[in-house]
Amino acid sequence: MNDLHLMATRSRAAAWTLAASSVEARNAALLAMADELNARREEIFAANCQDIDIARESDLAAPLLGRLRFREEKLKAVTDGLRALAGLPDPIGQTTLSRELTEGLKLYRVTCPIGVIGVIFESRPDALVQIASLALKSGNAVLLKGGREAAHTNAALCGALRAAAEKSGLPADFAQLMESREDVAAMLKEDTLIDLIIPRGSNAFVRYIMDNSRIPVLGHADGICHVYVDKAADIDMAVRIATDSKTQNVAVCNAMETLLVHRDIAADFLPALLPCMQEKNVRLLGDETVQALIPVEPATEEDWHAEYLDLTLSIRVVDSLNDAVDHINRYGSHHTDCIVTDDQAAAKAFLTRVDSAGVYHNVSTRFADGFVYGFGAEVGIATGKIHARGPMGLEGLTTYKYKLLGSGQLMTEMKNGQRAYTHVLLDESCPV
Amino acid sequence: MNDLHLMATRSRAAAWTLAASSVEARNAALLAMADELNARREEIFAANCQDIDIARESDLAAPLLGRLRFREEKLKAVTDGLRALAGLPDPIGQTTLSRELTEGLKLYRVTCPIGVIGVIFESRPDALVQIASLALKSGNAVLLKGGREAAHTNAALCGALRAAAEKSGLPADFAQLMESREDVAAMLKEDTLIDLIIPRGSNAFVRYIMDNSRIPVLGHADGICHVYVDKAADIDMAVRIATDSKTQNVAVCNAMETLLVHRDIAADFLPALLPCMQEKNVRLLGDETVQALIPVEPATEEDWHAEYLDLTLSIRVVDSLNDAVDHINRYGSHHTDCIVTDDQAAAKAFLTRVDSAGVYHNVSTRFADGFVYGFGAEVGIATGKIHARGPMGLEGLTTYKYKLLGSGQLMTEMKNGQRAYTHVLLDESCPV
Repeated sequence: MNDLHLMATRSRAAAWTLAASSVEARNAALLAMADELNARREEIFAANCQDIDIARESDLAAPLLGRLRFREEKLKAVTDGLRALAGLPDPIGQTTLSRELTEGLKLYRVTCPIGVIGVIFESRPDALVQIASLALKSGNAVLLKGGREAAHTNAALCGALRAAAEKSGLPADFAQLMESREDVAAMLKEDTLIDLIIPRGSNAFVRYIMDNSRIPVLGHADGICHVYVDKAADIDMAVRIATDSKTQNVAVCNAMETLLVHRDIAADFLPALLPCMQEKNVRLLGDETVQALIPVEPATEEDWHAEYLDLTLSIRVVDSLNDAVDHINRYGSHHTDCIVTDDQAAAKAFLTRVDSAGVYHNVSTRFADGFVYGFGAEVGIATGKIHARGPMGLEGLTTYKYKLLGSGQLMTEMKNGQRAYTHVLLDESCPV
Repeated sequence: MNDLHLMATRSRAAAWTLAASSVEARNAALLAMADELNARREEIFAANCQDIDIARESDLAAPLLGRLRFREEKLKAVTDGLRALAGLPDPIGQTTLSRELTEGLKLYRVTCPIGVIGVIFESRPDALVQIASLALKSGNAVLLKGGREAAHTNAALCGALRAAAEKSGLPADFAQLMESREDVAAMLKEDTLIDLIIPRGSNAFVRYIMDNSRIPVLGHADGICHVYVDKAADIDMAVRIATDSKTQNVAVCNAMETLLVHRDIAADFLPALLPCMQEKNVRLLGDETVQALIPVEPATEEDWHAEYLDLTLSIRVVDSLNDAVDHINRYGSHHTDCIVTDDQAAAKAFLTRVDSAGVYHNVSTRFADGFVYGFGAEVGIATGKIHARGPMGLEGLTTYKYKLLGSGQLMTEMKNGQRAYTHVLLDESCPV
């Protein structure tokens, strides 16, 4: 029996306690977490300085150093987030269907926690607080593995959250920190104890997880997002949306990677786009039609598959809306894709046919985010189709169970005609 | 490129056409299917006779022969089912969330089909019609693999359904029949074309699927269902529910396999139960306490894990409701479990703490079924926690996408304060 198995066993026990806890207890724990993080600020900042020093010595790139830093501003953001989360309605115990099946027999579908969730996330330490707090609010236990660079900060943050939960009468083991890649590998084998894995990382990493576990995986892999400029687009709006989608923040999964342009508008649109992209120092790649209209490097087949996460954009001219949809469904990552058009029928066709979690009309792809959608925060963005799609907030962390309340009804009575099905929809919450 | 890859490619194309089809076209196809099955009755019955003859030659057991038979009665049941399904509301295109994010920018969560679903099912040929018709109604394409024993019947049925779809202007390839185990193995590799696999079969078979594919699996594995007779149970009701749960149909996944009895009521309850079980010829196994109260064979640790699917029942005496919950969560299959009690607080604790898709109070476990729940029919019963749980009907075959309708909103405007989030919940359906 390895350490990870013991940890997962403790998570399982914590999850069953949390599933039966009151929302008052869970909200009190969230407020206590904010207080505890504030009380331990010096310890947390000192741990973060250790991580930063080690990162500097190993020449970590400046943007990554920025993500790693956890000081006053980040502390305020996460404690504000905890207090806001405490104010949201309880995601569990909600009745989503109620129906009388036969006289005196009532069926209720009631939301409940998933159970034990393994989350592997990147170096940003504030992600730890967001994920753990969303899990606690929704009654789940989490096994967390953060980036190695943030090890000291994560340990300090997780210690504070565990202490706060315990002070509020909830199990500290609702959140446990895994230490190593070996822990992650061991976790993948615990399919009887762990209900779901959420890996945040590269496509290759998500595939490694899927190939090595029976546990369901809700993936957050590539973000190859497209903007399609339709022939009926407003050119000014298309330029602004394309520029914002590509350049507002290049290092995020909801940034545009490929721009598709209808042939009929390309000669007007591309020259209008060019100065905006040049101003932001975007390296442009294009197919032959694009090359004939504006100065770009040639794009290859590989570019349509590329997630640059950088100041690079591939551009392709298409003959029709259908060709745009086919390109997106073939090369995209089913994350978020936008059409710019003034033609409502074209918008409807695009939004219906594009097979992505987010399908946008006349708005920047950068809006694909749990906070932006009003979910409070997110544990990730799911690009698969099962369970949750798009930004996963509290609702994505719940499942449901069917509660059936009877007074001795037997199947024998249904089969021999003593009783009949009524199947009346009710409008009531489950009483137990 | 193997045949299965070509089949999956055709399924993918059919799925994208279906996702954009009108509910009128899908309902017309369902009615055409009922007509086509009736028109081809002689061909279908002849194919079924071939299967039955082969099965008789290979000494198939009588209950399996009964499940394989497809004549007038089954034809009427499936055509009645098709017409009823045509009358149900459209499960796709339903708005389940609408919210203004900032002025003029509206977010809608809209249900849509999952896409391409692989279903492996048992010998009962009527299951083919149920699964294919639920898939078509919900806009999905299916790759189907039925039992080898029903090969001729399945081919005749699937041919009729495909012809009816085509006559209604929908792609015949919404349903394709796989022929062999090699096809199933090849399907498991097509994770870019297939969105979900639903294996109906043994636990070992479901694990084989999970171990050999990256495609999400919604499993329907063991049904180890429990009835717990609480100390505050009505003894007459407990006897009736236990008898119905065990004996009304022993060969189904929602039949009881283990009976748990509170120590305080065991001496009264077990002698009352005994004659009912003896009358139905149920072989009884019990722990030492049970052995001291009624004549039973000794139960071993293996019995608590057993899905007998037969006239056999294991009985255990527990010291408390918590011990009953612990037993169920440890040995059960998270399918359906029942408490018999007149104590509302005990019922609430049981329903909250038992980690199963169905948690019942004072009603036979045999009610766990998609038709019984009012879902029309089911493609299976999911015992996992992700996506769908319990009987999977139309709703379980849908996912959703977020549609965001804007007028040029940029993330730059949100970040620099030109615009603010409003996050107003709306009560409206998505217009596109």
